[in-house]
Parts: sequence; structure tokens; C-alpha cells
Amino acid sequence: MRLRHKPWAGDFIAEQSEYAISNPEQYKGKWHEVFGNDNPIHIEVGTGKGQFLAGMSQQNSDINYIGIELFDSVIVAAIQKAVDLQSRNLKFLNVNAKDLAEYFAPGEIDRVYLNFSDPWPKSRHAKRRLTYKSFLALYEEILVIGGEIHFKTDNQGLFEYSLISFSEYGLQLKFVSLDLHNSEYEGNVMTEYEEKFSEKGQRIYRVEAKYMNGAIQD
Amino acid sequence: MRLRHKPWAGDFIAEQSEYAISNPEQYKGKWHEVFGNDNPIHIEVGTGKGQFLAGMSQQNSDINYIGIELFDSVIVAAIQKAVDLQSRNLKFLNVNAKDLAEYFAPGEIDRVYLNFSDPWPKSRHAKRRLTYKSFLALYEEILVIGGEIHFKTDNQGLFEYSLISFSEYGLQLKFVSLDLHNSEYEGNVMTEYEEKFSEKGQRIYRVEAKYMNGAIQD
Repeated sequence: MRLRHKPWAGDFIAEQSEYAISNPEQYKGKWHEVFGNDNPIHIEVGTGKGQFLAGMSQQNSDINYIGIELFDSVIVAAIQKAVDLQSRNLKFLNVNAKDLAEYFAPGEIDRVYLNFSDPWPKSRHAKRRLTYKSFLALYEEILVIGGEIHFKTDNQGLFEYSLISFSEYGLQLKFVSLDLHNSEYEGNVMTEYEEKFSEKGQRIYRVEAKYMNGAIQD
Repeated sequence: MRLRHKPWAGDFIAEQSEYAISNPEQYKGKWHEVFGNDNPIHIEVGTGKGQFLAGMSQQNSDINYIGIELFDSVIVAAIQKAVDLQSRNLKFLNVNAKDLAEYFAPGEIDRVYLNFSDPWPKSRHAKRRLTYKSFLALYEEILVIGGEIHFKTDNQGLFEYSLISFSEYGLQLKFVSLDLHNSEYEGNVMTEYEEKFSEKGQRIYRVEAKYMNGAIQD
């Protein structure tokens, strides 16, 4: 992703406190109160400019969505979408994904979305991939039992790696598409990246993986 | 595969008794004696015209290979290859894969190869796919603990199905390539099909899946 420094980003995020939650650690275990309902909560880790969650939150008004994004110069675009839509079921956190367990209580989250995550192609950077086992452990910590990861990418190497990582962690694959846009899958909401890459004829890969009770873990 | 009736196939198979084992049920639990050594035994289910096993048996003289093929008009070409090579580590069985447990004792086999298996694309034929759960149970019956299935295909739908089937059965994915011929994988021996399809620019998919001790099964 192209990162352009936006000196005004911090102020903008602070002003949009309805959609951009500051000090999210204070809501740990209380996110249903924040949304004012008991609907399931789905998070997207690495939400970028927010097109996916904006679309999902409109498509599924009975689900609460929280986008996690580290870069303030990017998340401002996501927050602006929520402002424009006056979304009641969409919030954003400008925080680092590695600290997720500080913001969410065990079992508070129903699903994790990962979309076009940074592939970190060099082996020595494998630990930074959002499908590395330490991240899978982190998601497990905050997910309900039987919670799922829904992951899509155009990066073949990251997808291959992730299938193995999910499997070795003990997650069960429930859905696999090796060419999402030429499949029978319905209701796909595209990210900004996905629109751009698929126009170039890139295949989009998608998998759903489920945490099993009593899964094999190390 | 194009099947042409060969009225002489039965006689040919009977004559080549060194390479085409008749009445294989009599060797159940005794295949190491048949080969005259204690080397691991790998089987290919649906061996076709035998190019894969002929190549593998030459590449790996310390492994014993057995090809399973139902159609006599096809297996004759495989047997002829073994005759021509005077292979000491290659045998063929002209039998139905569904009866594998009649020919092999528990733990007698170290690895199962599935190459370009019939995709049986209609849902109502899913049970016929060689990666359907009943076949995974059959392979487990004859494999050593920690035995593996090595599967490759150009059929996207069958590959997607098989990843999920392996995962749901409790097998662990150890290797996944979504474009084998453009990967760093070394030592690939091509089947007749693989040569033809990859020349047309078809991607070849490959996975290695391992039976785990205490795997989740139903």
C-alpha cells in the first residue's frame, strides 16, 4: 500500500470519536455495549481504506464490524466512509494487530477477516505474516469457540503458506476457492486491492478456516 | 482417459506375472517378501499407463512401488514399461482401488500417490472421488502411522474439494503448490496427463497430506 504522510490524520481521527475509537482497551469485554446490541462482532485485521468493511456493514446490518489498521494515513479513508454512511455497525481502531488481546476479551469476537495481507515474502519475515502461528494463537484468544478466519489474497505464496499454517495449527478448512471471481461464490465484497488486481487478471484465492474444539496445537 | 478395448490385454497381463501380480490377496502382509527387501512401499492409486511410477522407480531404487489400475487396456502400457526397464522395485495390480484393504495389511504401505484422478465433477458422484472420506479411511487402514498422501492434479475443483476433504478428515497439510511447474519444487516426475496438460498452459496443483496420530475423524 502506498503510504503518504498526512499530518492532519491524528486530529481527524481524534475528532471522529464515534467511528474511530480511542483508548480501546477501556472497552475490552464491553464491545456489545459500545454497539448497543448483542449482534456478532467481526473484525478485519489490516482494514486499509475500509472498502471491504464499509460494504460488509451495509450488506449485513445484523453484524457489528471493527476494522483494525496500524497506519493513520490509511485508516482516515476508512473512517471517512463510516462518517459518510453514518454506519451504526462499523467502528475502527488505529492500533497494532499484535496487541489485539488488550482490546478484546476471550470469546468476544465471532470472526476474523484477513484481506490481501502483506505477504512478507522473505522467509526471515514469516513471523510478520498475519497467518503466522503466533497470530493464529492471538485470534484464538479473542474468538468464540468454533470461530472462523476468512482470508483472501491474490498472493499465491502467501496463500500456500497460510493453508499449511492453518492446517498445522489445527484449524479445519471449510471453504477453498482458487479463483474466487470465476467461482459460484455469492455476496463477495471487494477490497480496493481486489478491484485493482482482479482487473489485471490476477486470480483471487479465498479460504475459510475454523477453530475446532480440541484442535491440535503446539 | 481414452479407453480402447484390447482383447489381448488379459493374456498379456497373465504372461507378465513378475510385474503384474495376479491374486494379490495371497500377498497381503507379505509384500516385503515379494520385493525381497525391507524398503518402504509406495502405491499409486489409478496408475494409468505408468509413466509416473516408471520414472519414480528409476529415480528411487530404495523404494518399492506398486501401481493400482482397474482398466486392463490401460495397465498393459504400464506393465510393458516395467518389462522394458526390467524393474526390480515396480509391480502392478489390475484391481479395484475400493478393495485395497484385501491386498495390503495395516501399516504395510508408507505412502499413497494420487495423480490426476478422475474429478467426478457432479456432486452426486463425490463418493467416487479418490479423495472422498471413505477412500481416506481406506488408505489409513493400510498406511503406517504418519503415512502420507501425495496428490497432484490440474483440476481446480477437485483440488479445492480435496484440500477440504483432507482437512475435515484430520490430515495435516505439509506442502501445497498452486502452480507446481513454476515453483521451486525439485524432482517432479510427470505423468502422461501432466505433460499434455501443462503444455497447454494448465496449472498443476500439488499437495502432501499427513495422517496424524490422534487425528480428528468421524
